[in-house]
Amino acid sequence: MSGPDRLHAFDAAIALAPQGEGVWQGETSAAYGNMIGPFGGVTAAQALNAVLRHPHRLGVPIALTVNFAAAIADGAFLVLVRPARTNRSTQHWIVEMRQGERTVLTATAVTALRRDTWGATEVAMPQVPPAHEVPPPTRHGRVEWINRYDMRFIHGALPPAWDGAEGHGSRTLLWVRDNPPRPLDFASLTATADVFFPRIWRRRATMTPIGTVSITIYFHADEAQLQATADGYLLGQAEAQAFRNGFFDQTAQLWNQAGELLATSHQVVYYKE
Amino acid sequence: MSGPDRLHAFDAAIALAPQGEGVWQGETSAAYGNMIGPFGGVTAAQALNAVLRHPHRLGVPIALTVNFAAAIADGAFLVLVRPARTNRSTQHWIVEMRQGERTVLTATAVTALRRDTWGATEVAMPQVPPAHEVPPPTRHGRVEWINRYDMRFIHGALPPAWDGAEGHGSRTLLWVRDNPPRPLDFASLTATADVFFPRIWRRRATMTPIGTVSITIYFHADEAQLQATADGYLLGQAEAQAFRNGFFDQTAQLWNQAGELLATSHQVVYYKE
Repeated sequence: MSGPDRLHAFDAAIALAPQGEGVWQGETSAAYGNMIGPFGGVTAAQALNAVLRHPHRLGVPIALTVNFAAAIADGAFLVLVRPARTNRSTQHWIVEMRQGERTVLTATAVTALRRDTWGATEVAMPQVPPAHEVPPPTRHGRVEWINRYDMRFIHGALPPAWDGAEGHGSRTLLWVRDNPPRPLDFASLTATADVFFPRIWRRRATMTPIGTVSITIYFHADEAQLQATADGYLLGQAEAQAFRNGFFDQTAQLWNQAGELLATSHQVVYYKE
Repeated sequence: MSGPDRLHAFDAAIALAPQGEGVWQGETSAAYGNMIGPFGGVTAAQALNAVLRHPHRLGVPIALTVNFAAAIADGAFLVLVRPARTNRSTQHWIVEMRQGERTVLTATAVTALRRDTWGATEVAMPQVPPAHEVPPPTRHGRVEWINRYDMRFIHGALPPAWDGAEGHGSRTLLWVRDNPPRPLDFASLTATADVFFPRIWRRRATMTPIGTVSITIYFHADEAQLQATADGYLLGQAEAQAFRNGFFDQTAQLWNQAGELLATSHQVVYYKE
C-alpha cells in the first residue's frame, strides 16, 4: 500500500503540529502500537523531533535522555521544549510531554556544531554475515510496532519457549532497518536504538512485565554519515550488565553496513519479578 | 587536619541551604577544584543531593542524567528541583542549576521503591589484586580534586609522557575511594562515577582540552548494599567506544570489594582536537 507519494508510517508517527513557540501537538500512532501504549522508541523520536524542529536549534544531536514517566494513553499529547542554555557551539534542551495536566515524559538533549577532529572507533563491529544472508523471523510480531521493522537476528532472538530457562548472557545481535525502508535520520536512529526486546526475556525465558524507565542515546554520526547510510541495514547489539531488585540496564551499539559506529545507547528498565 | 568532629570535605562540598520549596543554594568547593571550575562529579552529586533532600522524595535513585551546560563559576549557585511526575512506586525529577539568571546545568533523575526480585549480574568484576597490594600514584594531583580520592591504578594510568603516542585502547581499571575514607552513599557513588580522567588522554597521549557534556548513572545498589560497602574501595573500570568530530563517549562500571556491581555510568565528552 506504500507508494512513493505516501508518507512513511514513521514520518506520520513523529509529525508535530506547532501550537506556539516551543509547544507542539503530536499523536500516538497505531502503526507503532506496543502491548500497552506506543513503542517507546517512537515516543523518544517524537521528543527529539520537537528539538529538531525548533527554530532556534543549534547544530545536531549529541546526547538525548528520555525518561518515560507514565504510560502514554492512545491519542494526542503536547510536547513542551525550551533551550535552557545556548552557547557558541553547544545547546542544552529540556523537554516535557504532557497529556492533560500530567507529565508523561521528561527529556534533556544536547545539540552541537561538530568540527573535524582526530577520531577513532574503539568498539569494532562484530563479524557477521551480510544482512541479505540472514533470514527474517518467520513469526509475525505479536505487537504492531514490530512489523514496522525488518529485523534479522544473528544471535539472541526471542527464546523459542517461555519455559523459565535461565541462560548466561543477554546479548542480541541483529540487522535492522525500517520496514518499508526509509533513509536514516536522527529521529529514526533514536527509535532504532530502542528496538531491542527486553534483555530479561533473553536472559531468563520468562515473560515478566517490563517498562523502560530511562534511555540515553549518544549520537556519534553526523548528517553526512546518516546520508551515506541511507536506507541500509544497521547492525544492532544489545546486552545487560545487571538485573537487580526490579531494574535492569541495557547497553547497545548501532553500526551501519560500512562498519561505522553511528550511535551508542543505554537504558534502565523496570521489571516485575 | 581531619578529625572525627570535622565535616568530611565531600559533605561540606555537597551541602545545600534551603531557599523555599524545591530551591536550594549551594557553593562550589575549593577542595574539589578542577582545571576550570569544580570537579563535575561533585557538581553531579550536588544536583542529586537536591533530589535526595526533597521532602516529597519517593524511594532511592535509579537513574540520573546531568548535562553540564556551561562552566560553573567559583561561588554560589541555586538548584531548582521539582517532581514532574509521582507514581505509586516511581518518581521523575527535573533539576536546573543556575548562577544569576543563567542555567549552568540541567538534570533529570528517577527515584523508585525497590522490591526483592530475581536478579543476576552479567558483567563480572575483573580479576585484580586487592587494593592494599596496589600502590598509590607517586605524583601529587595537579588539580585539587584529585587529592580528595585515593586512586590505585591497576591498568591504564595517565600516559607517562605527553608525546602524542596513539594506543589501541582507552581502558582504565583502578581501586578508588574518598580520601580520607567516608561511608559510601548515593551522592558519593555519583561523584565516584565521574572519577576517571578523560579517555582521550589515555587513547592518545595529547592533553587536548575536554569537558563532559552529559553523564548518566544507573544505580544498581540499594541502601543496604551501600551500607555494607561502607568506606571500602570501589573497583572502577572505564572505556571509550568512539571518538568522533569533537565528542567521545565513556562507559564505566563500579564494583565494591565483594564483587557487587553498584553502578554503571556513561558520559559524552567534548574534545577540542
